[in-house]
Amino acid sequence: MTKHTPKARLYVTADLLAGRPVVPDREQQHYLINVMRLAAGDQVALFNGRDGEWHADIQMTGRKSCDLLPTDQTRQQVASPDLWLLFAPVKKARLDFIAQKASEMGCSRIWPVRTDYCQVARVNDDRIMANAIEAAEQTERLDIAEIMPFTPLDEALAAMESDRRLIFCDEALAGSDSAGAIATLSAAAPLQRAAVLIGPEGGFSPAERHRLDGHENCLKLSLGPRILRADTAAIAALTCYQSVCGDWVG
Amino acid sequence: MTKHTPKARLYVTADLLAGRPVVPDREQQHYLINVMRLAAGDQVALFNGRDGEWHADIQMTGRKSCDLLPTDQTRQQVASPDLWLLFAPVKKARLDFIAQKASEMGCSRIWPVRTDYCQVARVNDDRIMANAIEAAEQTERLDIAEIMPFTPLDEALAAMESDRRLIFCDEALAGSDSAGAIATLSAAAPLQRAAVLIGPEGGFSPAERHRLDGHENCLKLSLGPRILRADTAAIAALTCYQSVCGDWVG
Repeated sequence: MTKHTPKARLYVTADLLAGRPVVPDREQQHYLINVMRLAAGDQVALFNGRDGEWHADIQMTGRKSCDLLPTDQTRQQVASPDLWLLFAPVKKARLDFIAQKASEMGCSRIWPVRTDYCQVARVNDDRIMANAIEAAEQTERLDIAEIMPFTPLDEALAAMESDRRLIFCDEALAGSDSAGAIATLSAAAPLQRAAVLIGPEGGFSPAERHRLDGHENCLKLSLGPRILRADTAAIAALTCYQSVCGDWVG
Repeated sequence: MTKHTPKARLYVTADLLAGRPVVPDREQQHYLINVMRLAAGDQVALFNGRDGEWHADIQMTGRKSCDLLPTDQTRQQVASPDLWLLFAPVKKARLDFIAQKASEMGCSRIWPVRTDYCQVARVNDDRIMANAIEAAEQTERLDIAEIMPFTPLDEALAAMESDRRLIFCDEALAGSDSAGAIATLSAAAPLQRAAVLIGPEGGFSPAERHRLDGHENCLKLSLGPRILRADTAAIAALTCYQSVCGDWVG
């Protein structure tokens, strides 16, 4: 069998089995046929979060419609680390950005939480999902992060299992003599389950800080001497976690 | 002396000395008076990359003009790590973003380089500088990264001092069994001078890879099993460097 480099990579919900055609949704068909200008016999890669990655041949079913015939499995399914990102949502463009980056960084759950200083009243879950899926397609992930609805911080904390470590990226530690992030995580490793928490611009309220300090499974992380924006802090903290406890470990 | 929290933080080029007024530029005056609505007696923070950070009082010199009177030095100057970011520039919004993030992450030099697969023909240095300054003001940095003109990769590599480690973030290592980024950097530490190199979408050409493999001071870094976008890779690589070799070390 000749292997070609697939011309696109798509997330689908259908089961992936050799020889069972998958019907991409209308938007995906438009993308494949009109945007990428693919045609019968071109190959794409598919994943659904369960069955690994498959190569599939495009079969035209009409002038502007196609289905995809899985031919061979190219990667086995692997689970993403059990790593949540809790963050106070920010303005639209930056919110898109955080959803994309959390997906690239391999988060298993993306959870916008309402904090006292959060400036955002509503969050568009579908938009977060679309960003997470697009990033997963591009980043070669085999699954999609679970997108949680916008939830008050207290409720999200209360919903955490007792063995899930809360990694609290405390901007108040910037410039302090606290241990570096890698040392802190290395001392705490292995962490099978974690949730990185990133605050809003302006940080956490005194009441929230009190609550976080008292959280029984809280690990405070310092992200260096500079005050990072929320989106930078999210990528930096997830990098540290993945490097020490997650799937970047060689 | 009563300390107030400064209402704004500005980069200026003038020397900072107690009692010697600094005249902010027109845009800064507009920002202070019209945007932030500050008035006589309000305090701002100033830095110039040489004299640490100072608090300064606003003195109105007209209805829409002011100068700033430094009163006391609040932080001593510290040097940023000698850490360059070389990157193949990308589309406008993402370029702004990389400049901001490199500044937040404490790079001493930001250097757009032309690679074989780079899609961008020209780079607006002033725009990179404006983004780097704005991020430095917000991130509590005491200096501004040096912005280099858009340069062919070969010339930038040739201009590197022999003791500057080239940290080549090789997307071809994604999913390989190579050592993790933290282990790689820990084994190479201490690195007094480094340059992180991030490729364009599509990576490096075979000729460039050959050249980079032969670079005498090259350290290949794996950023985990997923393919990261250039901007994510830049933040992730800079996080790893700062955490192991830079100023995030506690």
